[in-house]
Parts: sequence; structure tokens; C-alpha cells
Amino acid sequence: MDGRAGRVYRSRMDSPIDFFFDFSSPYSYIANEWVDAVAARHGRTVRRHAILLGATFQAAELKSPVSYPIKREYSLRDFARSARFEGLPFQLPEPFPQSTQNAARLFWWLHDTESPAAAARWATAGLRAVFARGTALQDTAALQALATDQGIAPAAAEAVWSDPLWKARLKRANDEAIAAGVFGAPFFIVEAEPFWGNDRRPQIERWLQEGPF
Amino acid sequence: MDGRAGRVYRSRMDSPIDFFFDFSSPYSYIANEWVDAVAARHGRTVRRHAILLGATFQAAELKSPVSYPIKREYSLRDFARSARFEGLPFQLPEPFPQSTQNAARLFWWLHDTESPAAAARWATAGLRAVFARGTALQDTAALQALATDQGIAPAAAEAVWSDPLWKARLKRANDEAIAAGVFGAPFFIVEAEPFWGNDRRPQIERWLQEGPF
Repeated sequence: MDGRAGRVYRSRMDSPIDFFFDFSSPYSYIANEWVDAVAARHGRTVRRHAILLGATFQAAELKSPVSYPIKREYSLRDFARSARFEGLPFQLPEPFPQSTQNAARLFWWLHDTESPAAAARWATAGLRAVFARGTALQDTAALQALATDQGIAPAAAEAVWSDPLWKARLKRANDEAIAAGVFGAPFFIVEAEPFWGNDRRPQIERWLQEGPF
Repeated sequence: MDGRAGRVYRSRMDSPIDFFFDFSSPYSYIANEWVDAVAARHGRTVRRHAILLGATFQAAELKSPVSYPIKREYSLRDFARSARFEGLPFQLPEPFPQSTQNAARLFWWLHDTESPAAAARWATAGLRAVFARGTALQDTAALQALATDQGIAPAAAEAVWSDPLWKARLKRANDEAIAAGVFGAPFFIVEAEPFWGNDRRPQIERWLQEGPF
């Protein structure tokens, strides 16, 4: 291996997987369950980004798939089937989709003031609450109950999501995602290569295993 | 196994896989390459349906993913990558998407006057022309050249696609697809279970192997 190939190789192995998700995205829930193990198998880490799909849809002039009645009917079926395919429990919250900006602001607060690992634990707890148990996380009481479970006092949680600082932080995350070409969730970027959708897992695994194809 | 289970089992094994495709759909090209082998491995046959995505998009109030600039850029990349992932050659025709009603009318003409197998051969020849070689099949000359390769005289081909009978036949196929819930391509129906997208292959394979999950 010459010097240049060596550098490229090291650069690749150092590069984390960027994983963009929305707390209201069923396929993000599924992907969140496998992404760490897949990354670890290839010596990678995962960098999670909580975003709002509404913002990325608007930027790309898209609408949610479930806003189209015919596609919604299929999608609801496919959400549950795709979860069963991975052996995961699944329950759709009512209403669906949920408003998730407060959960996402808590994510960025944990990320910036505690650690990316603490934010990742919050992401997993939130996605499981919404889609394994059907929790309506847009309800203040439900979100505060989850926060309490995770060691965050209800008043502290509410102070975070009401704070212009954390509102702006989430907006920045959305803007950065849009600038990176993200238009849906889950969305993965591996060495500048974009992969959209839980169903791109086989391609991501080959990319990590063998490099660009 | 009791009588009822036996009946269900036989009924399942008799049921063909309905495969809806558009000659202008890159993911249909990819799926067309594996669907027969997957079906055969589980004792099934494939029933192909040439449709026009434009008709199903209109019925579901959808637009093509490539009509959104940001999604188009990703999609073009993903088409080629998804083909490489399956070890298939890929070349995008210009312009993309192509108008494919004439190729689809020839499909139904072969299907009804010769055999579903002849129509399937035409489907494969057409999809490979468009996406393995980048042929602009919407051009009369290119379509007639492909017809000639497949043993259909150019004048006969033109007579078919100009004939109100075969125009109506394609319209009926679109209407039937829409009635069955088809809103994109490739689209598969296996024992009334809908699967949308080339990337649902793993779920289809498990369904065929183990039954409903």
C-alpha cells in the first residue's frame, strides 16, 4: 500500500457515520436500533443528528408520504411490517405524525451540555417510547414523564424546550442537514456518500465492509 | 397438518407474484433482473404488468421523485449505486424519465396475442435497453430497432402502438393497478400483500420462505 492509499484508508476508518433522524419517523426508530452495531462492526462511531422532517420536506418542496391517502395506507402497513422484519415491537402513536420539536431540543441540549452519548441515549429512549409503545410524545405530560425516566426533572425539561437558545440550536441542526442534502429520515452520510432510508442498510454495510462500490 | 392448513398452504403455493413495472423506472429494471429467480426458488411464477407511473402518480396525487431537484440529485446517484450493488450495468437515458406508453402497449399486445412469456421477454429487453445501454426508447426509431431485434417488424410495432385497442388495453392495466393500490414501481403483490420498491426484496424473500410475518 503506498502512502496515499494509506492516508485514504486511515481517513475512512476515522470517519463517523452521520445519522439524521426525526423522533416522529418510524423508519428512524428501526434504523436507530441497528446503526450502532453496524458501525461498531466496522470500527466506526455514529454521530446522531435530531432534525425535523417538516423543515427538510419544506426545503426540498416535499410533503410527508403519509400526507397522500393512498401512500399513507401502504406506509402504515410497511412501518409495522418493517419493524416485524427486524424483530422489533411496533405501535403507531396517535396522532401520527407527532410534533417532535421539544424532544429534539432536549436532544441537542443533552448533546451540547452533557455529551453526544447522553443525547444518543435520549434518542433511543424517545424513539422507543414513540414507536415501541405508541407514546404521544408531543404531549407535554408524556414528554416530561419520559424525561423523568431519563433523569431530567420535568421543570428543567420544559425550561430547555422553551429556551430560544435550544430552539435556535435545533434550527441550526435542520439548516445544516438541509445544506448537507438531507431531505428525509433516516438519512446517513458515510464519507460524503448519502444513503436515504432504513432499507439502505445492505448498501451501507457493503460500503463499510468493502469501501465505495 | 389439518385440512384447513393444507388448503391455505396449497393456495399460497399456487399464487403468482404480481410485478408492476414501468419501462422508465430504474428500480423496475433492477427488480426485473431478480424477480424470476426469487419466485422460482419458492415454486412461484411472476405475472408482469406494464404500467405508466404517470397514471399511478396522478391517481395518488403524487409526483415523480425526480421532479424535486434535491431528491432528483440523490435519486440519480442511488439508481446507479443500486444497480452496481446488484452487479448490473447502468446507464441513464436522456432525457430521463422517458415516455414509455408505446413500449408498454407492445407489452400488452404480446401478452394477449402471443403469451405472457413473450411479453416478459419484451419487458426484459426493453428495461435492459433503457437502463443497461441508456437507449431513448421514447424515440420511434430506437423502439422500432428494439422491436426488430425481438422479431417484430417495425411497421407492425407502429401499428400496435397506434391502435386504439392497445391504447385501451394499457389504460385498463393502469386502472387495474390503481384499483389494486399501486402507486409506484416496482410494485409487488404477493397473496394480497403489497410491497413497494426494489428494496423490499428481503421482505418478499422472507414472505415467500416463511409465509406472512
